[in-house]
Amino acid sequence: MVTKDLMNEFINTQFPQSKITVEHVDGESATIRHKITDAELRPGGTVAGPVMFLVADCALYVGILGRIGIVPLAVTTNMNINFLRKPSADRDIIGVCKLIKVGKTLAIGEVSVYSEGLADPVAHAVGTYAIPPKKD
Amino acid sequence: MVTKDLMNEFINTQFPQSKITVEHVDGESATIRHKITDAELRPGGTVAGPVMFLVADCALYVGILGRIGIVPLAVTTNMNINFLRKPSADRDIIGVCKLIKVGKTLAIGEVSVYSEGLADPVAHAVGTYAIPPKKD
Amino acid sequence: MVTKDLMNEFINTQFPQSKITVEHVDGESATIRHKITDAELRPGGTVAGPVMFLVADCALYVGILGRIGIVPLAVTTNMNINFLRKPSADRDIIGVCKLIKVGKTLAIGEVSVYSEGLADPVAHAVGTYAIPPKKD
Amino acid sequence: MVTKDLMNEFINTQFPQSKITVEHVDGESATIRHKITDAELRPGGTVAGPVMFLVADCALYVGILGRIGIVPLAVTTNMNINFLRKPSADRDIIGVCKLIKVGKTLAIGEVSVYSEGLADPVAHAVGTYAIPPKKD
Repeated sequence: MVTKDLMNEFINTQFPQSKITVEHVDGESATIRHKITDAELRPGGTVAGPVMFLVADCALYVGILGRIGIVPLAVTTNMNINFLRKPSADRDIIGVCKLIKVGKTLAIGEVSVYSEGLADPVAHAVGTYAIPPKKD
Repeated sequence: MVTKDLMNEFINTQFPQSKITVEHVDGESATIRHKITDAELRPGGTVAGPVMFLVADCALYVGILGRIGIVPLAVTTNMNINFLRKPSADRDIIGVCKLIKVGKTLAIGEVSVYSEGLADPVAHAVGTYAIPPKKD
Repeated sequence: MVTKDLMNEFINTQFPQSKITVEHVDGESATIRHKITDAELRPGGTVAGPVMFLVADCALYVGILGRIGIVPLAVTTNMNINFLRKPSADRDIIGVCKLIKVGKTLAIGEVSVYSEGLADPVAHAVGTYAIPPKKD
Repeated sequence: MVTKDLMNEFINTQFPQSKITVEHVDGESATIRHKITDAELRPGGTVAGPVMFLVADCALYVGILGRIGIVPLAVTTNMNINFLRKPSADRDIIGVCKLIKVGKTLAIGEVSVYSEGLADPVAHAVGTYAIPPKKD
């Protein structure tokens, strides 16, 4: 079982310039937080789309690794993201992943993305990772 | 008709922290370039996924605005992106958008994303923007 | 509030050649059943992909109309479907829709598709409908 | 090289209830036609969405098999389809596939779907097939 602390250490090395903290991981789901500072905002006071993509992608990655163990070579093959509402400029972004299927070569999950503390999601994504074959 | 220079000026205000240059725009298609520096790389020497998402999203935005004129309130509603190959760490990322349909309220286009100078795309995306209704 | 009976009557007129029954609808979610006969099968004894697409599309339609009332002009604009497992040839297909966002012009929901009685979904879809503007 | 005649024979066994003809296949692209009769129409005189899904899925399948040879176990893993315009009720549906990437385990392509003889596509799809590993 991959602990939250181990996952945080790993994510910080994989996404070094990011501002992500793993808040929960349990083999079925994962929750991450992305700190929002001026660097993540766009004119008009909203969080940039690529930040929400990053949160969706990273939450799915954490969710999958929480199930299969830390496999650094897993790569995103597909991500479908719907943007639902304008995120708040002064709240962190939270990504909540639920795994849909983890197979031998492909893993799929969905991620709801929130402005922290608000009930309605700002984005929703479904993505697929390719898992490298195990070597003996 | 929106010129390349006008579009560059606009994009620089909308994506201020980005490193994007509009190279071509003609009402049917658009090409943009994203400069790659150490800040865009991930461990292992590849361009981070959110950078490719940004290029796809921005190329589509430029493509649509090249058709309908500069409408700053257009927002991405959906983006489906397939990651195809590992991008080169030492080449700029190029996004080439072709519009599929520009309707009154929704505009759809596809974007092929390349490492500059290489023939095979590193990613392919299809996205939708919602266009705000015109006021009289 | 749109009742299950009213919805069944409506769906039977909209999808006349289909074999769909609405089993539940409550404004937040909907469940439909598609009868499986030899006509829905492909060689090898599996349910054809377009049947699963139909179930996803119809479950989302029922889910949305359960919220906004029966608006026959709502049309699918986007559907992203992941196929997860081979469906059983001798079980009905069940679609369970959960609405993600119902706005004024666009409504989005997700659908898990099952072979009846089996716990693991055979497909998962996220789709968008465009809702026609209300006339006065 | 898989000829058009060989592909037609194969498709007719794989999609036996369908009304599909392969019109072109060359290893990079493929064109198929789906005959439209009353059975494919929905009230209001338009082609049902699942028919367009079927055309997209089948055109991609033909495109991929035209490249890799006839591998009956290839299965769709993801399909993202955008519906663009109401199809004509009295014209066949044409699907034109262009391959994006054919790898060892995954193949991706895009399909433009038309009402025959009309310039503007009625739908556009991007899909992925999983290719089974070769046995020695």
